[in-house]
Amino acid sequence: MTRQVNMSDSDELKADKPATLGEFGRIARFFAPLASGAPGALGLTDDAALIDCPLAERLVVTVDAMVEGVHFLGSDPPDLVARKLVRVNLSDLAAMAARPVGYFLTTALPKSRGDDWLAGFAAGLAQDQAEFGIALMGGDSVSTPGPITLTLTAFGRIDVGAEVRRGGACPGDLVFVSGTIGDGALGLEAAQGKLDGVLGPADVAFLADRYRLPRPRVVLGSLLSGLASAMMDVSDGLVGDLGHICTLSGVAGVVEAARVPLSVAAARLPDRLATVLTGGDDYELLFTASPDRQAQILAAAKASGVPVTAIGRIEAGQGVRVLDAAGSDIVLDGVGWRHF
Amino acid sequence: MTRQVNMSDSDELKADKPATLGEFGRIARFFAPLASGAPGALGLTDDAALIDCPLAERLVVTVDAMVEGVHFLGSDPPDLVARKLVRVNLSDLAAMAARPVGYFLTTALPKSRGDDWLAGFAAGLAQDQAEFGIALMGGDSVSTPGPITLTLTAFGRIDVGAEVRRGGACPGDLVFVSGTIGDGALGLEAAQGKLDGVLGPADVAFLADRYRLPRPRVVLGSLLSGLASAMMDVSDGLVGDLGHICTLSGVAGVVEAARVPLSVAAARLPDRLATVLTGGDDYELLFTASPDRQAQILAAAKASGVPVTAIGRIEAGQGVRVLDAAGSDIVLDGVGWRHF
Repeated sequence: MTRQVNMSDSDELKADKPATLGEFGRIARFFAPLASGAPGALGLTDDAALIDCPLAERLVVTVDAMVEGVHFLGSDPPDLVARKLVRVNLSDLAAMAARPVGYFLTTALPKSRGDDWLAGFAAGLAQDQAEFGIALMGGDSVSTPGPITLTLTAFGRIDVGAEVRRGGACPGDLVFVSGTIGDGALGLEAAQGKLDGVLGPADVAFLADRYRLPRPRVVLGSLLSGLASAMMDVSDGLVGDLGHICTLSGVAGVVEAARVPLSVAAARLPDRLATVLTGGDDYELLFTASPDRQAQILAAAKASGVPVTAIGRIEAGQGVRVLDAAGSDIVLDGVGWRHF
Repeated sequence: MTRQVNMSDSDELKADKPATLGEFGRIARFFAPLASGAPGALGLTDDAALIDCPLAERLVVTVDAMVEGVHFLGSDPPDLVARKLVRVNLSDLAAMAARPVGYFLTTALPKSRGDDWLAGFAAGLAQDQAEFGIALMGGDSVSTPGPITLTLTAFGRIDVGAEVRRGGACPGDLVFVSGTIGDGALGLEAAQGKLDGVLGPADVAFLADRYRLPRPRVVLGSLLSGLASAMMDVSDGLVGDLGHICTLSGVAGVVEAARVPLSVAAARLPDRLATVLTGGDDYELLFTASPDRQAQILAAAKASGVPVTAIGRIEAGQGVRVLDAAGSDIVLDGVGWRHF
């Protein structure tokens, strides 16, 4: 770890500081138990961790950071913050068809956050470690005069050559998504209370939960290796993310808006198409595949318990077009969406 | 990446915001060139990076974070901030005897930092990539309402079983350090102007440079595989770090203060023993080895161009004792050091 520039005794003695075990105490209490399932973590007592990679496999690595006030609210329950941090990273691994293995975590915490916050945060990590079969491998804990800043580096494994990348879409491929689209962006509005009175309490709660707790499609993603020609997860928004696939693949994408799968709650907001298509934070899989793979893809969907829907096609050219039910273009003009 | 909660058009249009290319522009301009030497980085265009691990090797992974106002000053040159961030992580890899390969980087930057800061930061990364033969593999770029917060995850490789851990010290081993000790802590004082008038300008500049730009001992560390019984880098302070080795090894350590190697500048401050022994931020290697390895260790030191000095021994028992030139204990009493 890097030594602090400004650590002083007076800092440590401030009367309004919440209860804290100190860095080594916190590692022992909260983090070391999370690393007990990973021999290569070396009990978090060494300078670095060891990761073995079986023959004919490679490691898949991704990093995602979350900042208080930017990606989550300081009032959010710490266990949900932890689980969202884990899940947005696992979603990136799923988008490469990798199987998650473990993660490294850096927490930069203000002194106003005591051990109670960290206890909740660690409980959320433990819950998702159990759910996804992963373990903490190492990390760093620092203090900050600013907002909570969390960085997670997630590791997965994949057979050499089995990874699915963004650049493989071909003209004639179909475009698919998993789950339902738009719940992330509408869920943020729900979590902020903006949909109170517009939707019933059950719908508001459903959408807020979808925003707070992504469902990374790790099983489905893994099953799509060899089937999908290109894949990524929907984080910036369906249309923009499909644009990334098209740019890297050198092709054009067509989305039929009426085919984009919506949750029951989102379907009750029929005037929110722009939010659904561009809002992001869905963490569903967006992928392309040859039409002759469709039966295997639907079987993978069934096996993983996650629905998959064909929403469009890949053509020669560039850019992404969105069509309404009549087949007319819906065009994004930089401010919102309008019909031509 | 995770979508921002609070991004708004008004934010983007603030008149006092410095010039910025935006996230994708910054990745293309500043970060993608740093990843060009690493095929597994996939040009930073995919959800994750791919890392191959040759047969009979394993990966060694470490994470270190630096926060503006805590680990560095906002006025520090951005290229030096970048190089320190790289080097503190490489020092951790060196302490396991691993060869560095690449790294993942997360930058959380306030909007007050424009592309000029990032250009300097990237230049520092490029310089140290060339010096240490590493490449950027991936990462995340987010904005923050708080201080600059940087997290680096560094990867190295090592033959299976060749890693040197902290827990292997045995009674009868000698204790060694590389380079000189105390320059890091004294260098912080020098960088803060506290040694102006106490030392000449050349000494002040030497120490400040030692603080700002650690020299990770990656070549020496790699050569110590099979020779050192336990190893770590000196970041928290020599005595405390030797304490970690002793605790994990179940042994006691003895340091002869007069043998601890000092730079010429540090030697001109004879009353600063406590700072030298406990100040930290040295990023030198601290290791133990059987006396019959001493000739090979000195050969490794010569081959790597980094001096190595025996400063003490390992005994049965627990804790760390520091002896003065007469063989009497010097005891840390929680505030400073005093003679018994």
